[in-house]
Amino acid sequence: MRHSDPLEPRLSAWEARTDLPLTALAVIFLCGYAWQVLHTTASPTTVLWQEIGLWAIWAVFAVEFVIRFTLAQRKGRFLWRHLFDLLVVALPMVRQLRALRLITVLKVLNRRVGTTFRGRIGIYVAGTILLVGLSASLAVLDAERHDPDANITNFGDAVWWTMTTISTVGYGDRYPVTVEGRLVAAALMIGGIALLGVVTGVIASWFVQKIAGAEESIEESIQSEVKGLRAEIAELRTELKRAGGEVSRS
Amino acid sequence: MRHSDPLEPRLSAWEARTDLPLTALAVIFLCGYAWQVLHTTASPTTVLWQEIGLWAIWAVFAVEFVIRFTLAQRKGRFLWRHLFDLLVVALPMVRQLRALRLITVLKVLNRRVGTTFRGRIGIYVAGTILLVGLSASLAVLDAERHDPDANITNFGDAVWWTMTTISTVGYGDRYPVTVEGRLVAAALMIGGIALLGVVTGVIASWFVQKIAGAEESIEESIQSEVKGLRAEIAELRTELKRAGGEVSRS
Amino acid sequence: MRHSDPLEPRLSAWEARTDLPLTALAVIFLCGYAWQVLHTTASPTTVLWQEIGLWAIWAVFAVEFVIRFTLAQRKGRFLWRHLFDLLVVALPMVRQLRALRLITVLKVLNRRVGTTFRGRIGIYVAGTILLVGLSASLAVLDAERHDPDANITNFGDAVWWTMTTISTVGYGDRYPVTVEGRLVAAALMIGGIALLGVVTGVIASWFVQKIAGAEESIEESIQSEVKGLRAEIAELRTELKRAGGEVSRS
Amino acid sequence: MRHSDPLEPRLSAWEARTDLPLTALAVIFLCGYAWQVLHTTASPTTVLWQEIGLWAIWAVFAVEFVIRFTLAQRKGRFLWRHLFDLLVVALPMVRQLRALRLITVLKVLNRRVGTTFRGRIGIYVAGTILLVGLSASLAVLDAERHDPDANITNFGDAVWWTMTTISTVGYGDRYPVTVEGRLVAAALMIGGIALLGVVTGVIASWFVQKIAGAEESIEESIQSEVKGLRAEIAELRTELKRAGGEVSRS
Repeated sequence: MRHSDPLEPRLSAWEARTDLPLTALAVIFLCGYAWQVLHTTASPTTVLWQEIGLWAIWAVFAVEFVIRFTLAQRKGRFLWRHLFDLLVVALPMVRQLRALRLITVLKVLNRRVGTTFRGRIGIYVAGTILLVGLSASLAVLDAERHDPDANITNFGDAVWWTMTTISTVGYGDRYPVTVEGRLVAAALMIGGIALLGVVTGVIASWFVQKIAGAEESIEESIQSEVKGLRAEIAELRTELKRAGGEVSRS
Repeated sequence: MRHSDPLEPRLSAWEARTDLPLTALAVIFLCGYAWQVLHTTASPTTVLWQEIGLWAIWAVFAVEFVIRFTLAQRKGRFLWRHLFDLLVVALPMVRQLRALRLITVLKVLNRRVGTTFRGRIGIYVAGTILLVGLSASLAVLDAERHDPDANITNFGDAVWWTMTTISTVGYGDRYPVTVEGRLVAAALMIGGIALLGVVTGVIASWFVQKIAGAEESIEESIQSEVKGLRAEIAELRTELKRAGGEVSRS
Repeated sequence: MRHSDPLEPRLSAWEARTDLPLTALAVIFLCGYAWQVLHTTASPTTVLWQEIGLWAIWAVFAVEFVIRFTLAQRKGRFLWRHLFDLLVVALPMVRQLRALRLITVLKVLNRRVGTTFRGRIGIYVAGTILLVGLSASLAVLDAERHDPDANITNFGDAVWWTMTTISTVGYGDRYPVTVEGRLVAAALMIGGIALLGVVTGVIASWFVQKIAGAEESIEESIQSEVKGLRAEIAELRTELKRAGGEVSRS
Repeated sequence: MRHSDPLEPRLSAWEARTDLPLTALAVIFLCGYAWQVLHTTASPTTVLWQEIGLWAIWAVFAVEFVIRFTLAQRKGRFLWRHLFDLLVVALPMVRQLRALRLITVLKVLNRRVGTTFRGRIGIYVAGTILLVGLSASLAVLDAERHDPDANITNFGDAVWWTMTTISTVGYGDRYPVTVEGRLVAAALMIGGIALLGVVTGVIASWFVQKIAGAEESIEESIQSEVKGLRAEIAELRTELKRAGGEVSRS
């Protein structure tokens, strides 16, 4: 999404400049969120300060989105292209959907991972799954922990549930019961289907590549054949010119 | 299915004319069905009128099918090609299978979505899943709600069950117990497998396209090489003609 | 497996002759098995005669295998190629594995369906799933019904369990508890994975075909270009011959 | 991983020499582990000796890794490339992760199976699944058996659980509750997703191959066409030379 866009020079410049600080902020948010969810014995004051800190970082992302909108020269096109971004930035204001703040953070981190490991699809997929799985475990634990009917009540169970969901195994020994937890599950299921798709796609294209490789050799033989032909005709023309000269002279 | 068919001009003309009103009717049916399922505190009179309205719309679809059959010039070929349509139009007469009315409605809507978003496979897939998922949630709730053993008794649970089924996760905290509910589940499972297939297929073909792209450049080089060859030979013929003229003159 | 083999003329002739009666026998076996499993109130004498009938048909298949082995000219090669057939013919002698008789029957039927609907992959896949699913439902019901811990105790539940297994959803509201039932489940899981693979493969190859189609048009343009070239050179040779004749005459 | 590496001659020579004894040791480890897990009525002395034996084999693998590291000429590159190997050799020292010893063993066996059945993907996949499934069943039984909340307490249940997990069906009638058992489950889930990917990839590439086959025939026609062209031009040159000679003589 943040490829430099020749139609939006001001926007591209801004994005190039804010890329690094936003990534740092995303990492801080993730660590803060993990600490808040896992460290349950913190004093109320600490909890309050954490909460303020996390919402402040979210506010920075929201403000950054508004700035980008202001910088964009084609407002309509920008909004249409960033509809999903707008949603995940705006929806966390509803307290029930505050887990969506993680998606903004994950998008920023994912972009950086993608830029760093471009072309090494294995590491990229593993990194994304790890990042998404960790965030989902934290989010589902945060959502479920205080529900009386919940069966996901500690971090170990949350990680285990995340694993059974993303692999589409779904034993059903652990499952979310709150609306927020089920939203996290929906995101993970989409991730699981995409994961299966990427793994299968890579393997299938690898098999196809071996076939295509065999085919390419025929094409390369045609290519060299045609090149030889061209050289032969060039020679033919030279010979004809010489022959024509001799005929003229005779 | 409703591509204009050169062998059936009368049928194609009829289908072009009825396409829009049928889509509108399908939307009305879906909204009415949703209202009937979700608004459980309606008075018996309202419920009766709703029921009559929904069956009336279904009757319109059934009559439209009969008209199409009458217009078809090759009756046998028409019946064979529309066997599935015939089934989903006729089977809802068995009260147990009344949920099948939704499939007729979904086919009409799906055709319109397909025509509108042709080539934008992402939006098309997302739209189809949303439409199918919503219909399945309503249908399963309608089927299960009044069963004493049922565990899908409100719309939230129905949506959650639809999600776990279409992603093939299947926790088993919610599952249908009635025959009608299990038929809805069967349809969703087929949908889930198709969904996995489409997602994987798109990703795999995207990887293969990158390989094919590299291959195409060889082919394009052959193409330009062969074109150059042809130009060179044309020139050779001109030179030979001129040389022949000179020889004749000499 | 039963493609006519030029190295085994006697075997091929035998297989061509026995193909139809064996298919008929397989259908009778399947119907008899279904009747035995579903009609539980039959008198002990009827049950005994059914049992004898089914084992008699199985014996025919076993004898046919022995005859094929006798007819084969290369015994070792035949055994190695039909190892799986040998297993599913021999193993049902262990009473615990009598459900394996169904696999011999399904292989015979599948071959006929494959021959009839070759090239119409949709109907072939649907037919295979229907046949396998029905057999699995009967087999699991037969295996589980008399176990005190079983939760699959009627045909409806057996079909429902088959559906949740072959789609890899696996709610877990119904599951086999006997060894024989779990063997049926293993066969279904392999079927489910293969099903996912075929559906995805067809969709992926369809997407790839569209790409390959675009590529083919380049190749066809090269083909016509090269043909044009050849025609032009043929014309050039004719002209040269004529010119040579004129030169000689002058 | 153990392809002979031209940059590391000493390492390649060592690996070629140790390949067979390590495979034998891996088989012994697997058998010993199976015996330890399944034969629960052994006397404490026997159990102790078994434990010592298994740890001794693991120690051989650890020492072999250190020797390979010593032999490597580019230490950094070696460590980076064998990071995963280092982890699975070092981590079993934590008693909770002793099941990871199986991964080292499975990697050695998998290499040998891969070398033996290269190109026969069906047998290779089946062999790998069998080996991985058996190891996982043993490992999960070892991990779960002594937990009071466990529901996987005999080998039959462990094999059944392995099947439901690797096929991603996941009924949930059996599931691990200990951390070690859940680690085994994680490995199996990754295996299950890879299995789906390979099966789908093979089927998809088979379909694509049929398409590519049709395409290849066009290419082969171009190839023969271009070869014919070249022969024709060679003939043209000969004719021209003769004609030129005649002209010179006249």
